[in-house]
Amino acid sequence: MENKEDFVRIFDTTLRDGEQCPGAAMSEDEKLDVAHHLSRMNVDTIEAGFPVSSQVQFKAVERIAREVEGPRIAALARAVRLDIETAANSLKPASKKRIHTFLATSPIHMKFKLGKSPSEVLKLAREAVLMAREYVEDVEFSPEDGTRSEWEFLREVCEAVIEAGVGTINIPDTVGYTTPEKYGELFHFLTTNVRGAEKIIFSAHCHNDLGLATANSLSAIKNGARQVECTVNGIGERAGNTAMEEVVMALRTRKDFYGISTRINTQLISRASYLVKTITGMVVQPNKAIVGANAFAHESGIHQDGVIKNRETYEIMTPESIGLESNRMVLGRHSGRAGFKDRIIRLGFQPSGDELASAYNRFMEIADKKKEVFDEDLIALFTDQSMKKVQPKYRLEYYHVSSGSNTVPTATIKISIDSSVFEETSTGDGPVDAVFKAIQKITKIVPLLERLLISPVTKGTDALAEASVSISYEAKTVVGKGSSTDIIEATALSYIDALNRL
Amino acid sequence: MENKEDFVRIFDTTLRDGEQCPGAAMSEDEKLDVAHHLSRMNVDTIEAGFPVSSQVQFKAVERIAREVEGPRIAALARAVRLDIETAANSLKPASKKRIHTFLATSPIHMKFKLGKSPSEVLKLAREAVLMAREYVEDVEFSPEDGTRSEWEFLREVCEAVIEAGVGTINIPDTVGYTTPEKYGELFHFLTTNVRGAEKIIFSAHCHNDLGLATANSLSAIKNGARQVECTVNGIGERAGNTAMEEVVMALRTRKDFYGISTRINTQLISRASYLVKTITGMVVQPNKAIVGANAFAHESGIHQDGVIKNRETYEIMTPESIGLESNRMVLGRHSGRAGFKDRIIRLGFQPSGDELASAYNRFMEIADKKKEVFDEDLIALFTDQSMKKVQPKYRLEYYHVSSGSNTVPTATIKISIDSSVFEETSTGDGPVDAVFKAIQKITKIVPLLERLLISPVTKGTDALAEASVSISYEAKTVVGKGSSTDIIEATALSYIDALNRL
Repeated sequence: MENKEDFVRIFDTTLRDGEQCPGAAMSEDEKLDVAHHLSRMNVDTIEAGFPVSSQVQFKAVERIAREVEGPRIAALARAVRLDIETAANSLKPASKKRIHTFLATSPIHMKFKLGKSPSEVLKLAREAVLMAREYVEDVEFSPEDGTRSEWEFLREVCEAVIEAGVGTINIPDTVGYTTPEKYGELFHFLTTNVRGAEKIIFSAHCHNDLGLATANSLSAIKNGARQVECTVNGIGERAGNTAMEEVVMALRTRKDFYGISTRINTQLISRASYLVKTITGMVVQPNKAIVGANAFAHESGIHQDGVIKNRETYEIMTPESIGLESNRMVLGRHSGRAGFKDRIIRLGFQPSGDELASAYNRFMEIADKKKEVFDEDLIALFTDQSMKKVQPKYRLEYYHVSSGSNTVPTATIKISIDSSVFEETSTGDGPVDAVFKAIQKITKIVPLLERLLISPVTKGTDALAEASVSISYEAKTVVGKGSSTDIIEATALSYIDALNRL
Repeated sequence: MENKEDFVRIFDTTLRDGEQCPGAAMSEDEKLDVAHHLSRMNVDTIEAGFPVSSQVQFKAVERIAREVEGPRIAALARAVRLDIETAANSLKPASKKRIHTFLATSPIHMKFKLGKSPSEVLKLAREAVLMAREYVEDVEFSPEDGTRSEWEFLREVCEAVIEAGVGTINIPDTVGYTTPEKYGELFHFLTTNVRGAEKIIFSAHCHNDLGLATANSLSAIKNGARQVECTVNGIGERAGNTAMEEVVMALRTRKDFYGISTRINTQLISRASYLVKTITGMVVQPNKAIVGANAFAHESGIHQDGVIKNRETYEIMTPESIGLESNRMVLGRHSGRAGFKDRIIRLGFQPSGDELASAYNRFMEIADKKKEVFDEDLIALFTDQSMKKVQPKYRLEYYHVSSGSNTVPTATIKISIDSSVFEETSTGDGPVDAVFKAIQKITKIVPLLERLLISPVTKGTDALAEASVSISYEAKTVVGKGSSTDIIEATALSYIDALNRL
């Protein structure tokens, strides 16, 4: 349990609730990269995963617990012994740890999902917290679907888990149904009516189904919440979770109104956004608040004129406050190894000596082709899975395409599988189709292409292109990434990366 | 002036404030397509443009005023005679019309942008409304930067313009600075203190800089606003405007709380989103509320299980309510002309006989290559500028690329300029770079590539790929689009489309 000093704690769940959205699955290394960056941003708690759900989840939580210093590491657990014990095991190496256990309390969830009566739920909630306290000091409880629960019942549940030794009670708006007024009233009700409320921290957890996640979280804060659960870029199931950058910057920009802050280093927001976007392949729309590409752009003549006359006429935040300007620092051919390493670490990566050496070599290749290498290029380079130490099954050895008007697009592909090299050719509706079909002939796997996104990382036609492909095969969906100055090659690499992840 | 029946009027400004964001400029034909769809959705008012700003804007407003039936057509005008007269002229053909005039009322804008005293501003606002009333019955006034204006001064301005005959007063949160609580209080103050408030409609106009546009608009409605200004997908300057789909669906889903609705046909929301996304090239993030690709997707096992047991456990809206299911209707090789035409019109297009014939031919070509042609394919096909009747200066006659490992990417391009055909070859860092460089050799124009986005319109590698390229040249930025089953060809077409728009 922590002292109740007056600031808003940021509980980042990018790696748990964020990762739960279609196609956003991250590898263990990628989760580590995100966790290290969150630590540098000074988030209070990192929810690292749901350890009981798979061995992969367990290992990622355990590695984050071991390697990431600074924030408290949390793990999710249903209100049952197996989950709680598994969460506790995964958190063992952490110096600061929290078990986050949950149980639904709304009539519809209790009846249809749990098939349990309110009194059973009350008892199980209390027992789950007692159980979690056997393993750790710091326990959080979430009455799932809290905003559709009966207030009196919620009060009883809160009192029961407080007696059992909970430190934080989180009220999830699981289905994104509440409004700022109602959510605020609920926090006011709980903070003033729950016996023992003064001993714990109340927390908000919102979903953006109606576009209200940020407003709901802020309304909770106005009414006594002192923790907000959120994700970078607002990724998460359906319309996503509360976007961390929006809550943090709203509190900062409207300090006059909210009168309370977070401890986040806002200058690392822009990089966090870019890192999570690149790793998950979840694009950020240009008109996204705070981190969209246009968020600080002024197009119309009237606005530009105003901004020139006095910046505050149309600008309530500066791009510098989220670290946007410092992002533009440029490396080039003449940048040395030390400058390169320093920059890579500041961007959120923790490469080993070998990785750094190989990354530096690739950086020099790119610097040969491109005049200026931006942070975005470096992030793309690092998140390109081919760099990572995982030994891939499939490796692209050679490719060639020919395509044009009155030409049947044709591709030649060589792929090594373990140590043998296979070669195939195929035609297709276009060069990408031809490449994918040739790869399919070699691998004998014909997945469904769900999504393909190709975007240049930086400006100019010589930019590094980044392809993100989402394929599904036998009920499993994976995202692969590849980067190259050649978009066809980037696409081929992303496809092979996806196959390696299947 | 309209009767003050109790519903929330939707004032769509996708074509005015929405178009004002970097790279979202639309052609006249594209604006017509959007306006027709807005009319089918039953929006109350379409703000079609800012006629004095350019001849292009004037013509688009005039054509919408002439051709689009149903909604009232509005045009924007600063509080000066030239603007108001030009707006009135552009609106002449409309059966229902509104002049929307504005003048800043905040201390910072009056001092730094206008260089005028409050009493001068008060006088000019009143005069602008009187002037506009010389031309039209229905006048709207916006005190720009209203949320940073002094409330007493706002009250005086409102009373002055009501006396002058205004029908709607819109309070813009120009810089996206307000909070739901404050904005609500302001509407409560104005609706209860302004003399004559009962005679007019108060309107909300929010920007999403802090992620609060939807919540602010809803709070205004709770406090008496009966018009909301918004855009499809929330496009607009910086972080964008209030998203129409969010306000409409929040009012619908939480009718129990807000107790008031709009007249929007919500089943056309999904198509509106797709149409605007495709035309503007402004992507919609997968976790966007209501219209994001994941908005109705359930990934985690716990959620899926809940949804199967009882849909309402995790779903507060149905995908059908925004027209998502009906979107999946499929056309194929055997679809006749009548079915094709019917579908095209329902998708929001108003093709002439010639356009329809040529579109049908292209549709049959695509149906030859693809098993199933989805609505998205058809929209891409129709928004592909090469289809439109504008006679382009540059036309792609032939292209060929060859690219691969240990191969210098090489492109051959033939372009016709007026009636002569030019041919060039170039190498590049990748095939797209080679194509762009060959085109640059022919056109002698070397613009900066701002952004290139390539995405397949539908699933499968045989999908139609859609390229959207944003280039800037001599301080002008344009977006070009192209679609093809070959991504390199789509990119080449989008680049040439952009050049034609320069």
